Amino acid sequence: MREEFNTELFAKGLKNRQEVLGAEHVQKSLDAADDFTADMQKLVTEWCWGELWGRPGLDRRTRSIINLSMLAALNRPHEIRLHVRGALNNGLTQDDIKEIFLQVAIYCGVPAALDGMKVAAEVIAEEKAKNAKAGAK
Amino acid sequence: MREEFNTELFAKGLKNRQEVLGAEHVQKSLDAADDFTADMQKLVTEWCWGELWGRPGLDRRTRSIINLSMLAALNRPHEIRLHVRGALNNGLTQDDIKEIFLQVAIYCGVPAALDGMKVAAEVIAEEKAKNAKAGAK
Amino acid sequence: MREEFNTELFAKGLKNRQEVLGAEHVQKSLDAADDFTADMQKLVTEWCWGELWGRPGLDRRTRSIINLSMLAALNRPHEIRLHVRGALNNGLTQDDIKEIFLQVAIYCGVPAALDGMKVAAEVIAEEKAKNAKAGAK
Amino acid sequence: MREEFNTELFAKGLKNRQEVLGAEHVQKSLDAADDFTADMQKLVTEWCWGELWGRPGLDRRTRSIINLSMLAALNRPHEIRLHVRGALNNGLTQDDIKEIFLQVAIYCGVPAALDGMKVAAEVIAEEKAKNAKAGAK
Amino acid sequence: MREEFNTELFAKGLKNRQEVLGAEHVQKSLDAADDFTADMQKLVTEWCWGELWGRPGLDRRTRSIINLSMLAALNRPHEIRLHVRGALNNGLTQDDIKEIFLQVAIYCGVPAALDGMKVAAEVIAEEKAKNAKAGAK
Amino acid sequence: MREEFNTELFAKGLKNRQEVLGAEHVQKSLDAADDFTADMQKLVTEWCWGELWGRPGLDRRTRSIINLSMLAALNRPHEIRLHVRGALNNGLTQDDIKEIFLQVAIYCGVPAALDGMKVAAEVIAEEKAKNAKAGAK
Repeated sequence: MREEFNTELFAKGLKNRQEVLGAEHVQKSLDAADDFTADMQKLVTEWCWGELWGRPGLDRRTRSIINLSMLAALNRPHEIRLHVRGALNNGLTQDDIKEIFLQVAIYCGVPAALDGMKVAAEVIAEEKAKNAKAGAK
Repeated sequence: MREEFNTELFAKGLKNRQEVLGAEHVQKSLDAADDFTADMQKLVTEWCWGELWGRPGLDRRTRSIINLSMLAALNRPHEIRLHVRGALNNGLTQDDIKEIFLQVAIYCGVPAALDGMKVAAEVIAEEKAKNAKAGAK
Repeated sequence: MREEFNTELFAKGLKNRQEVLGAEHVQKSLDAADDFTADMQKLVTEWCWGELWGRPGLDRRTRSIINLSMLAALNRPHEIRLHVRGALNNGLTQDDIKEIFLQVAIYCGVPAALDGMKVAAEVIAEEKAKNAKAGAK
Repeated sequence: MREEFNTELFAKGLKNRQEVLGAEHVQKSLDAADDFTADMQKLVTEWCWGELWGRPGLDRRTRSIINLSMLAALNRPHEIRLHVRGALNNGLTQDDIKEIFLQVAIYCGVPAALDGMKVAAEVIAEEKAKNAKAGAK
Repeated sequence: MREEFNTELFAKGLKNRQEVLGAEHVQKSLDAADDFTADMQKLVTEWCWGELWGRPGLDRRTRSIINLSMLAALNRPHEIRLHVRGALNNGLTQDDIKEIFLQVAIYCGVPAALDGMKVAAEVIAEEKAKNAKAGAK
Repeated sequence: MREEFNTELFAKGLKNRQEVLGAEHVQKSLDAADDFTADMQKLVTEWCWGELWGRPGLDRRTRSIINLSMLAALNRPHEIRLHVRGALNNGLTQDDIKEIFLQVAIYCGVPAALDGMKVAAEVIAEEKAKNAKAGAK
């Protein structure tokens, strides 16, 4: 791991980030870190995942709800993809996620809801396939 | 009340809207309804408050969390004002609301967080003053 | 068709949606409806296509103009694609659509206009190819 | 008038701008033009009002419909105020404007619609008061 | 000053924030910090002003240019007001700021440019009045 | 070249556009111009590249900084791609671009920064590969 990642806050953030988004995805981002992207990886891991997600004020399930709501409003499909997976890891059900996007439809408009739900449906299908495969073993 | 408001879904929505946003605010909106705004009041009360807020899938506290997150991202201070009050009515504490805006700072940017928090702080101060006055009686 | 789709408002919306967006596209969305997406399909078909597009206040051509304008501003390419096709079905010419995106350039900025026009150009080329093929038979 | 305003395109744009937004409002903007704002006034008058609004491809009524749709989506209340007045000047009725904002509610979300309609209602009330006063003379 | 503000990064950020936005404005924000807003003040001062503005990679003048560009695009008039003042403190001239907003007009659309320029013009007028008063002493 | 492109302002804009974005990309856009897209190409080349980029008030390096900042905030990946290449042509280093996106993270939120940086990293890798290939000859 790059030297500048060697801080206490980074370690704390890394653990939160891995637990929410999955170790594999996070490893891929860190492995890809080069002189152009490393400072961003550091900032995101320390501030977003160390500081914010490390705060005890709200549980992870609630933080996932907040994120999906904001990301749908912000029109950020890549992040919606990551955070639908995170939401499932944090205990949201398929029905919870459905309700969030119905509320998005009313407050952010139907296009935001349809776009977000399409991404969410893909992630949910992938997770089901993965679980089915794991169950078949 | 205007004739076109006389539907079952409107009545259901009206009850939800009053319980969340306060009867006084809702009455003001409905009293102001004229030929230009009545159809919008009907749509919002039926669709948003009857259909969506009437769904059992998420509790009101969670719906308030979703709304504050979306409204901060959408840059809608008038609606943030209404829904901070709604959030307090639905059981969110001052600390819960603070945490939401800290998460807004990271995902929507610092300006969205500072603008939203300013409005929220005003509502919280008003509610404290109102409660202090009520307590003094 | 799923049982919850069996309402009068859904039937009305379905007809409008099919006439504007094309029966094939709509059928695909409804066929894909599962426990995750069916409530959204219901909401969109009833409220957006039954209630709103069912209103006599504006003709369909005008509603298409409004939609393209909003969708370009909202940065929603998937929906622009659908509604450029809808606009052609509702009688807008290629020149009308061109003018809308020129106005988008001034009010929403050049990137919104270029992104939107690129999607529109693809749809227009597809429609021309389809018509040429149909004409050749 | 400032020397740099002395172009053919500016004169053409100025005429369009005055006819749509009202001579009084435009005069105020131009009178206020100083070394900081004059280049912007020139760009807007020439580009937006000379080039775009001078195009024959769409009538003014349609351009007003496009503008209100975009401005509601873009969350720009100052411009909504100007262009509701412009829309009335260009022949849109109160009912047309109402329909636009109902469509905004579905596609841009309820907060965009309520915020935009509030501004529109104020302009419509002002115009009615002005007309009543004029009629009383 | 509140105890949680007592970190090295906060001190570094506070210095940067005061030098850019003015000591008076910053003091007002910190004095107003209470249990609701203090964590946000800490996050903003440490993260935004300590971490980011403390980076040597770009000079302050350039960071002001970036901020005005983003804030105009983000539709955040309160922050534009603060950062036009900051831009003047960081050495941007009135003409530099004018050019930024002309570029905003083309890329973010005319409404973003007019709204932003209006706020900027007010700040510039205030600063001129302040300087004239100071010069008259 | 199409007849309507035959203006002095178009020629001036074309030169700027080619120098910033690369002659190959611009040629592709112009070659693709047809009755649907030609007026947009004309508007963009004349106003954006002739008028704005032709202004002496800011150097091209600064205009690239402004553009990347706005485009990240506006969520326009296609344009970010073009203008990262333009920024490199205008003398920004990889480190300058990195700093811009770190500032985007704070003010527009982490998703805007990660999305933008991903596109920028791809362009930077392509340019390095191209230069390596050119150097190997």
